[in-house]
Formats: sequence, structure tokens, C-alpha cells
Amino acid sequence: MSFSLQELANHLDAETSVAADLILDDVASLHDAKSSHLSYVESRKQLKQLKGAQAGALLTNAELADQVEKSDWNGGLLVVDDPQKRFIEAMLLFRPRPEREAPGVSPAAHVAESAEIADDCCVHAGAMIGENVTIGRGTEIYPGVVIGPGTSIGANCILYPNVVIYRECEVRDRVIIHGNAVIGADGFGYRFEQGAFVKIPHTGRTILEDDVEIGACATVDRGMIGNTIVAQGTKIDNLVHVAHNCQVGRHNAFAGQVGLAGSVTTGDYVQMGGQVGIADHITVGTGAKLGGKSGVMSNIPDGQTYYGAPALPEKMAIRTQLAVHKLPELREQVKQLAAEVAALTQATQPDTSRSAA
Amino acid sequence: MSFSLQELANHLDAETSVAADLILDDVASLHDAKSSHLSYVESRKQLKQLKGAQAGALLTNAELADQVEKSDWNGGLLVVDDPQKRFIEAMLLFRPRPEREAPGVSPAAHVAESAEIADDCCVHAGAMIGENVTIGRGTEIYPGVVIGPGTSIGANCILYPNVVIYRECEVRDRVIIHGNAVIGADGFGYRFEQGAFVKIPHTGRTILEDDVEIGACATVDRGMIGNTIVAQGTKIDNLVHVAHNCQVGRHNAFAGQVGLAGSVTTGDYVQMGGQVGIADHITVGTGAKLGGKSGVMSNIPDGQTYYGAPALPEKMAIRTQLAVHKLPELREQVKQLAAEVAALTQATQPDTSRSAA
Amino acid sequence: MSFSLQELANHLDAETSVAADLILDDVASLHDAKSSHLSYVESRKQLKQLKGAQAGALLTNAELADQVEKSDWNGGLLVVDDPQKRFIEAMLLFRPRPEREAPGVSPAAHVAESAEIADDCCVHAGAMIGENVTIGRGTEIYPGVVIGPGTSIGANCILYPNVVIYRECEVRDRVIIHGNAVIGADGFGYRFEQGAFVKIPHTGRTILEDDVEIGACATVDRGMIGNTIVAQGTKIDNLVHVAHNCQVGRHNAFAGQVGLAGSVTTGDYVQMGGQVGIADHITVGTGAKLGGKSGVMSNIPDGQTYYGAPALPEKMAIRTQLAVHKLPELREQVKQLAAEVAALTQATQPDTSRSAA
Repeated sequence: MSFSLQELANHLDAETSVAADLILDDVASLHDAKSSHLSYVESRKQLKQLKGAQAGALLTNAELADQVEKSDWNGGLLVVDDPQKRFIEAMLLFRPRPEREAPGVSPAAHVAESAEIADDCCVHAGAMIGENVTIGRGTEIYPGVVIGPGTSIGANCILYPNVVIYRECEVRDRVIIHGNAVIGADGFGYRFEQGAFVKIPHTGRTILEDDVEIGACATVDRGMIGNTIVAQGTKIDNLVHVAHNCQVGRHNAFAGQVGLAGSVTTGDYVQMGGQVGIADHITVGTGAKLGGKSGVMSNIPDGQTYYGAPALPEKMAIRTQLAVHKLPELREQVKQLAAEVAALTQATQPDTSRSAA
Repeated sequence: MSFSLQELANHLDAETSVAADLILDDVASLHDAKSSHLSYVESRKQLKQLKGAQAGALLTNAELADQVEKSDWNGGLLVVDDPQKRFIEAMLLFRPRPEREAPGVSPAAHVAESAEIADDCCVHAGAMIGENVTIGRGTEIYPGVVIGPGTSIGANCILYPNVVIYRECEVRDRVIIHGNAVIGADGFGYRFEQGAFVKIPHTGRTILEDDVEIGACATVDRGMIGNTIVAQGTKIDNLVHVAHNCQVGRHNAFAGQVGLAGSVTTGDYVQMGGQVGIADHITVGTGAKLGGKSGVMSNIPDGQTYYGAPALPEKMAIRTQLAVHKLPELREQVKQLAAEVAALTQATQPDTSRSAA
Repeated sequence: MSFSLQELANHLDAETSVAADLILDDVASLHDAKSSHLSYVESRKQLKQLKGAQAGALLTNAELADQVEKSDWNGGLLVVDDPQKRFIEAMLLFRPRPEREAPGVSPAAHVAESAEIADDCCVHAGAMIGENVTIGRGTEIYPGVVIGPGTSIGANCILYPNVVIYRECEVRDRVIIHGNAVIGADGFGYRFEQGAFVKIPHTGRTILEDDVEIGACATVDRGMIGNTIVAQGTKIDNLVHVAHNCQVGRHNAFAGQVGLAGSVTTGDYVQMGGQVGIADHITVGTGAKLGGKSGVMSNIPDGQTYYGAPALPEKMAIRTQLAVHKLPELREQVKQLAAEVAALTQATQPDTSRSAA
């Protein structure tokens, strides 16, 4: 697909002054862009990268546009209120999303007789739909997905290839689950009897509420008695582990490889960096943020940012970390002080030391 | 399913004094329980949660029952020796386990001609069983499971959907493997020759002994020359990585996202918290416990508890951690001391300082 | 398979002095070897393990052979230049690799009509090949692999069972991808609008260059605008996460459970130990090495080794770590010094203290 700058301006509700007949054929980052590409600048920091940039045109806002024009860069300009948002729109003009496959259940899918699948779903070859499963309108089930008996899937969901959902789970509307994720496996719970672990049956379920997204190879175990819940709008990245009985709040975002042990509760709008680990039965308050690799062993209050393992409040974590990095210096200083104190002690007790000699 | 309190008492070998005709229809945690639910109390800590609890009846032991009756909670009581164990039994009365599917090999499974599958196995549609595979009595193979040539699976195992087992591995009896786990992939071993990594072939195998359970998306690589072994009764949680040549002892428990590098050996009854990492060729002694996120770079003696990265013995780890958190204070104190020492030095050398003036 | 020591010597281009007619039937590590096994010694450290070793013969180099002969071990010897390399050759003599299955597309594979599969590929039952996929010569696609529309796979690749590759990715020649890995899933990118996360479409791709190997359950997300690239010869272990827009250099090696956040760039020959985490937009220089569990929050220069979280240059990290472990001692020392300084202060101000008394 290609568009003139003027056509793009019309589509994106943008102002453009020069070169309105320039033809562009794709989007690219500032670093990668060639002369037929549209790129974007949304921060002062990016202005420094303009020198040598080869993009044919830039999307930016009015404030930055002034700076762009003063720089030595002289391609086309599209001026909008929200460059990132408009750039995404432009990207989808140049690269329209592939059309959804025609709805229907592939004859090569294995669908139990008692399953109820809405007419406008797309169930691909090799998908396995168990007894009494229900699937809502517009949902797409890719090859190799396995849905256990009694599970319900809502409307307009996407289950990417080889996703596994165990029996009797509940996936609500507009949920996206990426390849090889596992929903509803048994929690890691055992009794220790006579020298061996005895498995505790897990009869609770996993519930993924509306608009949840689960990353590739992530796992959300089922509850033991009650349910493991990931609440509305929460986004979970690849290889994240949510253990049994967790109650994850709404609009959380967990980056890659985060791990929640059993019965963790989070408020709404919690954010966790990559590889964070939360001990069992911990509560993380609404709006809390946890830096990457944090290890959380006590409750986190609302709205606070914590770092480190064990995690500390941001200021304290930074202060402590700085102090740790200066620790070798501190040791030298203490050694020096000890020498000085010893000298002073000697100097102030001349008679004793002489008589000892 | 519903039961009177008296019926439950009979099933669970419990004593009950009041309200024996109370009808209950499910189990629930104390927090979630409604008036038709049975809940349980197994610790003094939970007694505090009784206030406001709405459970119809409680399972507890004789010692706690006294306390419960003194509290302001007045529902039914079932008194047993081991509340957790009996509560699990009650849960399975209210929520009987789904019946095993009728045994048999689905015509939509792909089974090699040379494979030997015991008559009472259940092999679901879409499972792939390779040449010379053997599968013991009562084992259930879910859809999408792929078993490589020459692998043997024991009796009464469960392989959940999309599990992958590479060629010539050995899975013994009563092993459970959760969705999307991978058993027997090549270890991460290369020779570095002429500027590039050259793959070292892995001709050893992976052996999972009796009663092992492997979590969803966990990986246990095969050995290079010898075998990677996970010994009897060991339980491994989701997203755990066991690298080539590891010798994991009996009745270990590894929580989510633990990683063992190559050739790690563990004794029996080792426990690891989530996200622990063990460096290659390390030995972890029998009965050792490692706190979550520990990083282990030297051998761990039998029976010891270690924390931190690098891991230290529990007491030392706590002492060190406390000292780290007080480090900013310590720096202030040293600064103060330095000032005092400087003042003292000046005070004890009055003549020198005067003559310098 | 079995061979005489003389036959092995011929195959391995080795010298052998004694017992040339000894018959061996397998390889084993020194620890596991029985009298019919060939083992190897490639370091002085291993010489200590010779006592009690039962191997029938040893592969070693000339330098070590002298030491071996002086030890109390008296089996056969094969002397070569590179014992590890020759031992691998010996292993493959005793344990020849299973023959590749006959090429061809299984009638039980699901192959889109527009897909182009070279004649000598092997596509197993249950593999799903999407529209416009191309697959080069000699590539093997195991059961349950799902390849999305428009993706190209090069020559002589191996895709193990249940690997998922999303649409329009590019996998070049001799790439190996292990079971349940996911290539090309959407990156973890959202805009936050009106209290909720809005998904950013990802129209970039994932490119795996020649000779890349990806571990089981590892994930390499697609780029947002540009491509996520894993360059030639790089080896990635199990459960590793490479986020959107990363540019991984050539001949890198990432051990298990490493996580790269978005837009990380690495030079060539970078090595990372297990469970390392790299923050977004970081650059790791050519030849840099990161110790296991390192957390990297700032750029790493070429050729440097870093440890810890946050990561420090090796020497500094060791010095700091030592200082941390001695911190409780340091606190004692400072406490002691403070007492001494207080005593000195008192001693040097006799009049003041007397008048205060």
C-alpha cells in the first residue's frame, strides 16, 4: 500500500505544510526509516536522532514540529495531537491487518457433541473442544488448542495455537491467550505424609475476566477450593506463573517471567517488571509498582513503588543500593579510622604504654 | 451434592454435637463460605477470621473446637484429628472427581504400529505415539501429547494436553505431567570451534521415576552421555528448568520457575522456593531448603536452610540482610565518627596545630 | 554396537599401546563407566577420579596420558589431541544417530494449498502448515507444530513437536527449535487510555538467522514496527524470553530462563548465565559476559564481565559481595570504634566531665 502525504494527512486528521504529494509506502522507526517511509517523533530525546535520519516524512506534535523544522532535517511533516496513536493508525493503513478467516468449524477439528459453538466462531483444524464446552460469538480457536470439558469461552476471544485450558475454567469476553499458555492446571499443593508428598486435589477453577491477555508459555493454575482469578483488563506477559488461589486485580500488567506464589492478592493497576517474584499469601496494594527482579516477602501498600530482593520502598532501595556499592570504600574508611583511633589511644595514654614497655 | 452434618460426620469419622440435621451443599474457604458451606479451621491464626464468617459448619480439631465454641461464631462443628485431610475428603464428597473416560485408543490418535499400549489406557484424539513406545496399564494420554520413538511410559500416568516427550525417555509409574511440559529435549551443550558454537549431540535420556509430578511448561532436558534423573516422588512446579545430566533426588519439591543448570545433584527431601537458581555441577544436600530467589554457587550441606543470592546459611543471611538495610545508617555513623576522630586528633595535638597557624 | 580398542583407535585417529583387542560396547562418564565402557579424561582435576574408576579404556591427550599411566589405573588408553571432540565421535560410533525418517508430507499433516514444501522435507502427522508458508530442503517438521501464514522456513531446520510460529516470520537455514517454543507472538505493548490498557498491534516480524537454536518453551516475540532478530549462530536455552524489537547479535549464548525486555541490543559473542534479566532498551557489548541471575539496568561495555543485580563489573561485584558478607563484622567494628572514641573524648576532656559530675 502507498499513500501521498496529503492522503495520510486526511486519514490521520493531521496538518501538513510541505511536500503534500510525497508518496510513502511504509512506516519505520526513525533509525530504520528510508526515504519512502513515514516515521515519528514523540519526545525531545528523539530530536537528537533526526540528524542523518532518512525518513520521507515524520509524524509529530505541534510543539516538537517547531524543533524539527529548526533542525537540519527537511522531509515532510504531519502534525497531530498524539503522535504515537496516529502512528499506529498509519501503520495499519500501510499494513492492513490480515482478514479474519471465514468463520466455521474445520472438519479436522475435534469437537465434542455436547459442545456449543456460536455460529460465527472460527475453529481451526486440529483444535480439540471437550464435552459441554461453550464458545461465544466471534471467537477464534487456532490449531492445536485443547479445551477441557465444561470450560466456557466468551465472545471475540483469540486462543493462539496449542493453548491448553483444563476442565471447567471460565474465559470471558475479548480474552487473548498466546501460544502454548496453560490455563487451569492443578496448583502445586501436597500434604506430606509418611515421608512422601500426597497430592491435594484441586477442584477450584481459573477465571480470566474480560479483556485479559495472557502471554506465550504463561501458566495460570486453578484454585484448590475457590478460584484463581485474573480480573478485567489485566495483561500478563510470556512465561509468567500465576499459582493457585491468586486473586489478581483489574488492569494489572506483569512483564515477562514474573512469578506469583499461591494465594497472592493484587489490587487494581498493579505493575510488575520482569522476573519479579511474590511470596505466597502476600497482598500487593492498588497502584503499586514493583521494579524488575524484585522479591516481595511482605505486603506492599497502595500506590508505592518497591525495588530489590527483598523489596524496599523506592527511596530506601536506591539509598541502600548506593550504600552497598560504596561498601568497599566504607570498609577502607573504617580501617583508617580504627588506625587513627588506635594512634589516639596510644597518644593519650603515654605513661601506661611506657610502663608496659 | 448435599449432605447433612450427621452424614458428613459419618463419612469423615467426625464428632458433631449440634445441628446434626443442617444440610450443606459445598465446601469453601472461611473467607468465601456461605451458610450452606462447610469450611475448616486448622490453626489458631484462623480463629481470628471466625468473626463474621458465614460458613454453615466448620471442620476442626478438638483443641481448636474449644476456642471456636468460645468465639462468637455459632454454626455446626465437625471435630476430627486432621482437619486439612478430612476437609479434602469432604471436598471430594461434594465435588466428586470426574469419571475417567472409558479406556481405549481414539481412532483420531496417531499411534505407530510398533507401539504397545496396555488395554486399559485412554489415548485421546490428536495424541501422537511414536514407534516402539510402550504405555502401561491405566495411563491417560490427552490430546496433542507427542511421545517420541522408543520412550516407555509406566502404569497409571497422566500426560496432560500437548506434553512433549522426546525419543527414548523413561517415565515410570503414576507420573503426572502437566500441559505443554517438555521432557527429554537436548541439553544446552556446545563446543566452541572457529568462532562458532558446534552442537554436542545428546545421546543420554531423561528418566522420571515413580510418583513424579512435573508442572505446566516445565522442561527436563536429556543427558549428554548418561541420563538426567528425577527420582521417586519428586514434585516440580510450572516453568521449572532442569538441565542436562542433573540427578534430582527423591521427594524433592521445586516451586515455580526454579532453574537447575547442568549436572546439579540433589539429595532426598530438598525443597526450593520459587525462582531459585543453581549453578552447574553443584550438590545440594539431603533435606536442604532454599528460600525463594536464592542463587546457589557452592555446595549446600545436608539439612541446612539457605537464602539469598549468593545464598548464605539462614542465620547469616538474615543478619547480613538486616545489616544491608541498616547500611545507610551505618554510613552516617561512620561519617560522624570520622568527624569526632578528626576533632580528637586536633585536640590532642595542640602545639603542632598552633605552630602551623 | 561394539568395537575393539584397535578399531576405535583407527576410527578416532588415536594411538593405543596396550590391550588393543579389548572389546568395548558403550561410552560412559568416568563415574558411571563399567569395564566394557570407554570414558575420557580431559583435565588434571579428573585424574583424581581415576582411583576406583572401572572404565575399560580412556580417551585422553598425550600430556594427561603420562599421568594416567602413573596412577593406579590400568585399563586401555586411546591418546588423541582433543579428547572431548574424539569422545563425541566415539559416542556416535556406539550410539549411531537414529536415521532421519523418510522424507515426505504425512497425509495426516494439515498443509495449506498455497504452501510450498521442498521435496525432501519430512512433515509429520498433525503438523499444521498455513497459507503461503515456504519450507526449504531437508527440513523436518514434527507433529503438532503450527506454522502461521506467510512464514518462511529455511533448509535443514528441525522444528520439534508443538512449536508455534506465528504469521509472516522468517526462520533461515539449519535452525533448530525445541518443543513448545513460541516464535513471533505479539510483543507486550499497550497504550494506557481512559483507565485501561489498549493493545498496540505488532506488525513487525521475528527473524531467526542461520544456525540459531531455540530451547524448549522459549519465546521470541515479534517486533512492533521493525523486526525482532536473533542473529546467526546464537543459541538460546529453555524458557528464555526475548521480547519485542530485540536485536540479538551473532553467536550469543543465553542459558535457561534468561529474560530480555523490549528493544535490547546485544553485540556478537555475548554470554549470559541462567536467569539473567536485561531491562528494556539496554545495549550489551560484543563479547560481554553476564553471571547467572544478573540484573542489567545500564549498558554493558564490550568484552566486560558483569555480576549481580544491579550488575557490576566483575572485580567490583566480587569486592562488593565480599564486603556485604562481612557487613555484620563491620557493624561490630564500628560499634567498638564508637565506644573507643567516646572513651577518648571523655579522657581528653577531663575538666568538663568533672564539672558536669
